[in-house]
Amino acid sequence: MKRISYIDDFERWRASFSFSIPIKVRFSETDLYGHVNNTSVFVYFEEARIEYLKSLGLFSEMEKKKYGFIVADLQCDYLREMYFNEILTFFVKVDSIGTSSFDIHYMAQNEKGDVTVTGRGRLVMVDIAEKRSQPLPEHVRTVLEREMDKQNVS
Amino acid sequence: MKRISYIDDFERWRASFSFSIPIKVRFSETDLYGHVNNTSVFVYFEEARIEYLKSLGLFSEMEKKKYGFIVADLQCDYLREMYFNEILTFFVKVDSIGTSSFDIHYMAQNEKGDVTVTGRGRLVMVDIAEKRSQPLPEHVRTVLEREMDKQNVS
Amino acid sequence: MKRISYIDDFERWRASFSFSIPIKVRFSETDLYGHVNNTSVFVYFEEARIEYLKSLGLFSEMEKKKYGFIVADLQCDYLREMYFNEILTFFVKVDSIGTSSFDIHYMAQNEKGDVTVTGRGRLVMVDIAEKRSQPLPEHVRTVLEREMDKQNVS
Amino acid sequence: MKRISYIDDFERWRASFSFSIPIKVRFSETDLYGHVNNTSVFVYFEEARIEYLKSLGLFSEMEKKKYGFIVADLQCDYLREMYFNEILTFFVKVDSIGTSSFDIHYMAQNEKGDVTVTGRGRLVMVDIAEKRSQPLPEHVRTVLEREMDKQNVS
Repeated sequence: MKRISYIDDFERWRASFSFSIPIKVRFSETDLYGHVNNTSVFVYFEEARIEYLKSLGLFSEMEKKKYGFIVADLQCDYLREMYFNEILTFFVKVDSIGTSSFDIHYMAQNEKGDVTVTGRGRLVMVDIAEKRSQPLPEHVRTVLEREMDKQNVS
Repeated sequence: MKRISYIDDFERWRASFSFSIPIKVRFSETDLYGHVNNTSVFVYFEEARIEYLKSLGLFSEMEKKKYGFIVADLQCDYLREMYFNEILTFFVKVDSIGTSSFDIHYMAQNEKGDVTVTGRGRLVMVDIAEKRSQPLPEHVRTVLEREMDKQNVS
Repeated sequence: MKRISYIDDFERWRASFSFSIPIKVRFSETDLYGHVNNTSVFVYFEEARIEYLKSLGLFSEMEKKKYGFIVADLQCDYLREMYFNEILTFFVKVDSIGTSSFDIHYMAQNEKGDVTVTGRGRLVMVDIAEKRSQPLPEHVRTVLEREMDKQNVS
Repeated sequence: MKRISYIDDFERWRASFSFSIPIKVRFSETDLYGHVNNTSVFVYFEEARIEYLKSLGLFSEMEKKKYGFIVADLQCDYLREMYFNEILTFFVKVDSIGTSSFDIHYMAQNEKGDVTVTGRGRLVMVDIAEKRSQPLPEHVRTVLEREMDKQNVS
């Protein structure tokens, strides 16, 4: 197995996810190599991340248009090819929490249960009007910490 | 030659364009059939349309954020496959002028000089704040009519 | 109501669809105008079209890689803005049948039941190895005619 | 300045690039936040990477369809927002060479000369028929090493 910098123990890491959504590969997301283009995966990450934030009730922060979560960095490791018409399961979790940002981890599985991609990226909370980073408010921090606790228990 | 509803005499139509831009096909714009995906062509149309509006000095209308041009409809006829790494030439022209809208025609040629796609679409001038269509201002109409005259002369 | 060349009686047309799929608007499918970019709609059309062909058992034709359906032309009329996070319902139907091609009609509705876009396009059956059009085989024609009959009855 | 794991000394790193291409931001590559969507950057990376490989004469390897370069992982750090109509300069270089793979680094600058994104990713050479990784052939290694030497000199 390939070494991935943000994963210590792959099997433990894999078991630590609880949230997931299905994403079906579109025809237009493939390329002439016959499988999913590498850039399409970041579209999937974005969809999975937003659904995860919604499930945590953090999406309304964005809708009030006062605060937003900005993508500070993104990383993706490609383990297996993905094909048109496959239904992939995208898993998302909080991995660590900073002062004004937190890390999100991603994992996708195909229908056979093989992991096809893994990823991570930091989200920074910004005050949209002021255009600068913003310490995570207490209620946001509470939600994120509860997500971290869930992983430690199991 | 296939009948295309918005083209009367193909050779005359083809000769009536004067503005064009080159667009190189990206890897991610192909699909598993090995050529350009049908949806990518509308991305090319948009790029060519905006460059055309800029060349006419009409783009600044959009930048002032008071008026904008909204795509009311779009149409594309696919005549030949397009491939990764090809440099296509996209031609654009004004085809007819209404009260608050005008028609744009599109044509793309590959490096061999073959026409690969043709298209058309109507742009409507809207007052962005009021979110409704807006008669074309006199200076916009003058520019568009000059574009039409150019075609009649040649 | 705007005149659309491929629709005679809008309410009758609207009632003639029976197949549909839901499509949720992704963040990356919007543009700086704040709503769905015009090019994203053709991605939705492609997804809806393929799901429709699958529902008719015609997709397996493509999977055998002997025959394929090629998009000959596409047309879209934009009636209402579509927004991030909306769940649109895309309807698809066969509208007419030729010797080696058939017409597909499209309609999308938002959650309020408003029609947001309409469209059409011709699909041509091609022999993939020979790269040329191919008369519709009898079993394909039968399926398409049954789809047409359904609309006449209702 | 933000710490980026794959950059030691930012100014030295920045000076080590010599190849670049211009990329103009398309309207459809923005999102409702009003700037370039995070996923679009990977499309730019792919375009810049392919142009770089072509400039090194390594692209013909792919065209012979015997060998190909597969993206093993990708990473992007977002430093500044990018906007519609900006012309970005994308820089690419070889950063390290392995047995059957090599690392590519990316940097984009806007028209003011500000760095907007940085990135990296590993490309693996694969035998396309056998679908497995392949030691870098001697002539490929020679080209890549020459690219590395160029950076050490300056």
